[in-house]
Amino acid sequence: MTVDNVKPTVGFIGLGIMGRPMAENLIRAGYPLIVYNRTPQKMEAVVKLGAKSTNHPAQVCDDSDIVITMLPDTPDVDQVYFGDHGIMNRVRAGQILIDMSTVSPRIARKIAEEAQAKGAESLDAPVSGGDIGAKEGTLSIMVGGSVHAFERAYPLFQVMGKNIVHIGPSGAGQVTKTCNQIVVAITIEAIGEALVLAEKSGVDPAKVRSALLGGFASSRILEIHGQRVLDRRFEPGFKMRLHRKDLNIALDTAQDMEVSTPLTALVHDMMNSLLAQGKGELDHSYLVAEIAKRANLAME
Amino acid sequence: MTVDNVKPTVGFIGLGIMGRPMAENLIRAGYPLIVYNRTPQKMEAVVKLGAKSTNHPAQVCDDSDIVITMLPDTPDVDQVYFGDHGIMNRVRAGQILIDMSTVSPRIARKIAEEAQAKGAESLDAPVSGGDIGAKEGTLSIMVGGSVHAFERAYPLFQVMGKNIVHIGPSGAGQVTKTCNQIVVAITIEAIGEALVLAEKSGVDPAKVRSALLGGFASSRILEIHGQRVLDRRFEPGFKMRLHRKDLNIALDTAQDMEVSTPLTALVHDMMNSLLAQGKGELDHSYLVAEIAKRANLAME
Repeated sequence: MTVDNVKPTVGFIGLGIMGRPMAENLIRAGYPLIVYNRTPQKMEAVVKLGAKSTNHPAQVCDDSDIVITMLPDTPDVDQVYFGDHGIMNRVRAGQILIDMSTVSPRIARKIAEEAQAKGAESLDAPVSGGDIGAKEGTLSIMVGGSVHAFERAYPLFQVMGKNIVHIGPSGAGQVTKTCNQIVVAITIEAIGEALVLAEKSGVDPAKVRSALLGGFASSRILEIHGQRVLDRRFEPGFKMRLHRKDLNIALDTAQDMEVSTPLTALVHDMMNSLLAQGKGELDHSYLVAEIAKRANLAME
Repeated sequence: MTVDNVKPTVGFIGLGIMGRPMAENLIRAGYPLIVYNRTPQKMEAVVKLGAKSTNHPAQVCDDSDIVITMLPDTPDVDQVYFGDHGIMNRVRAGQILIDMSTVSPRIARKIAEEAQAKGAESLDAPVSGGDIGAKEGTLSIMVGGSVHAFERAYPLFQVMGKNIVHIGPSGAGQVTKTCNQIVVAITIEAIGEALVLAEKSGVDPAKVRSALLGGFASSRILEIHGQRVLDRRFEPGFKMRLHRKDLNIALDTAQDMEVSTPLTALVHDMMNSLLAQGKGELDHSYLVAEIAKRANLAME
């Protein structure tokens, strides 16, 4: 074995429903792993597979060549990077910091600036594909940052994902993810208005779905969530409260960029109402059940 | 040739951009055709191919076994069926009346009731696929009415279309078409909000489109109209003013059925503004240019 083949040590912070299977895939691929998780018990499973646990993010940073973070929301990322025991206290020249959380493009750019000031590099690399994609190592990964950093991180991305695209400079990965979440949310609402109108008109929504799939109205959402709606299967999948969080990022970004996004705002607003009704843990396709409910049509 | 193989005489009313190529395909397939068009000059081309012209819709009805109408809007259909020289004055037992226009489900049901009262049958059979689909005989045809009438009309549909679906009772074809137009309009707006947000964020919208096509946000609209938007190609295609007409039908239907369709209403409203700006003859994907304009981003 030559020195070139020695795998870099990877620090991994955030072992939730997404992070844990991603970390496990890296261990299985032979990467030495150093992990941190706010709830320490969640480190046990990966420690059993050979990972080394730590007490705070800065410690992860000390002992690794590449640091990956996979956290629930923007404040968590802010804390882990910029908090008291945060990564930014210890980042060294030559390190790569990869944030794979779905957060605002703004914080991705902030991390990039700080990292650069310390001679390190960063990538924003949010994913789509859910916990199944994380387990199977088939996530789509949308990457922002320098080509140089992207190329260094590419072998790790290949362990975790399949459709890996370098989009542009820092923040571009998060912008792409936010675009994805906008399109998915609005398309769910689109098929909802259509299928509820069909059903209330006494027309079989299954036949409408089939007919529309043959033409210009066709989409993955109509295919997958259309079928979910017909079957009334609203267990997640992708939770409503997480999609609401992502639309909040979209609206923040739209505000920063001064873009009017009325349909995104409207779907976000509808999700607020669904969370108030205790539906946040259901699949985001439950939006369609809400449209049905507003039309006095039962869909549960 | 046995009697069973004698083709029925087809009356065809409405020889516009869609109707004329549909009528021509029927002539080429060997159907005797009797035609009427409000602007008589538009009958000349099909008369040269062997069609017989008439002076009013009732005359078409007198001499044909099956009557097809392909007209711009609900008032035109109302006039042709229920006006002074309208079809309903002469319809006979055993005839089939097929309205292939895109109009309200309400008028489809009204035609069905009147036809039934006179011992005739009717089908609502709106299409999608545009003038190219009409020329090539590859239209999608969404059919409402009895199975018996559908089976009788099926050989004619096969001449004009490819994806031919019997959806349900009278009106079901129009309901399906309106669902199609809802989904298409809202999906255009969805990709518009996303691609404009990307571009204003300094992220290449072509790369965002590619990344999104690989995942859950994928749709025919993102594929086809996404590319149109990147190329700034807004010649029709499907004209904005016709799509606005179709969303008007959708909103009327939503009112009849008491379904809240906020996104449909919002896109229809945006189309009103675009028609006021003289953009009605452009492709419906020009909606995206309007979103860009509202974000002070040039897209022409």
